[in-house]
Amino acid sequence: MPKKGIIAVISGFSGAGKGTLVNELVKRYGYAVSISATTRPPRAGETEGKEYFFKTKEEFLQMIKEEKFIEYAKYVNNYYGTPKDYVFSQINSGQDVLLEIEMQGALQVKKNFPDVSLIFITPPSTAELKKRLINRGTEAADIIDKRISRAVEECSYMDKYDYIIVNDDLDKCIIQMHGLLQSLHFTKNNQKQLIESICNNFSSFLL
Amino acid sequence: MPKKGIIAVISGFSGAGKGTLVNELVKRYGYAVSISATTRPPRAGETEGKEYFFKTKEEFLQMIKEEKFIEYAKYVNNYYGTPKDYVFSQINSGQDVLLEIEMQGALQVKKNFPDVSLIFITPPSTAELKKRLINRGTEAADIIDKRISRAVEECSYMDKYDYIIVNDDLDKCIIQMHGLLQSLHFTKNNQKQLIESICNNFSSFLL
Repeated sequence: MPKKGIIAVISGFSGAGKGTLVNELVKRYGYAVSISATTRPPRAGETEGKEYFFKTKEEFLQMIKEEKFIEYAKYVNNYYGTPKDYVFSQINSGQDVLLEIEMQGALQVKKNFPDVSLIFITPPSTAELKKRLINRGTEAADIIDKRISRAVEECSYMDKYDYIIVNDDLDKCIIQMHGLLQSLHFTKNNQKQLIESICNNFSSFLL
Repeated sequence: MPKKGIIAVISGFSGAGKGTLVNELVKRYGYAVSISATTRPPRAGETEGKEYFFKTKEEFLQMIKEEKFIEYAKYVNNYYGTPKDYVFSQINSGQDVLLEIEMQGALQVKKNFPDVSLIFITPPSTAELKKRLINRGTEAADIIDKRISRAVEECSYMDKYDYIIVNDDLDKCIIQMHGLLQSLHFTKNNQKQLIESICNNFSSFLL
């Protein structure tokens, strides 16, 4: 049996660079990323099973009923959720899996699966965050202000996370994240198999 | 103000290779190691402030009274303890500090200083442990059996630790330990300064 992979939830302020970070971790180190299910209709260019698993509302509600989600939520009339099947089959085959989800979903995951580690990505300062949001050039000033107000609220979530990482320099942050993700294999929660096998081993030795 | 260093407690089964591991971490990566105080008389070749800080029983009891220890214990008529001063001055200057202490001391540290991380080192199996103890060539068979019996008892401590690392291949283990120790900088407990500064920063931005 291969050592099980770890599950890490990645969240953070809008503009913290989570998306780029996760893409690079996948590209450079081969992490798997969970794919969400949603009842929102596909946009142009989106493919089933790539960006999302597209579900009807009935299908989604049925999946909720059958406890097939790690977490789910409703936003503006659409459901979004992380299906268990994909994530669990990945970790059982020894693959580490990243879940990029927002904060309320993250806390839902932690509550249901306490062994999962929560990682929070933050820019080094608000000034830097505002700069990044403006540089994207795609957002109006009032949207930017709204996001910063939201970030202030989101601050209260930071200390619910297990780890906080500053994304100042992208390359440095990718290397730090990879180091952190690898070290998650050594947490007590991810070493249960080992603890059990060592302790059984010791005990049988005494017989 | 430099970012504070982290404190990591390292324990594990006798014969797990803790001593070599800690020495190599110090030599290769510059970690500081805390020096214990003891009332045991110096042995030939031991120097004050290198192997131990040597104290009279009166001095030691006075230090206990003044809460100058992170943890202390009495073994066979002698006291042993980890003085606060050295460890705290090191982490305040940004230096990471390793404490190699036994399990009851480790739990004492965790109780008094919950931000400290506990790391448990284990050989991959009992068979391997017994082989290592025999290969040392310095121990009689009954001592080896006694150590293994003790290891069985110590098993119950494993899941009190935050991280468990197998020392199978020394070089691999040193690299894994260094990765783990560096990632401890990102734990919520070691990021309190950052969380506070980010959240104050965001809030002041809104004024």
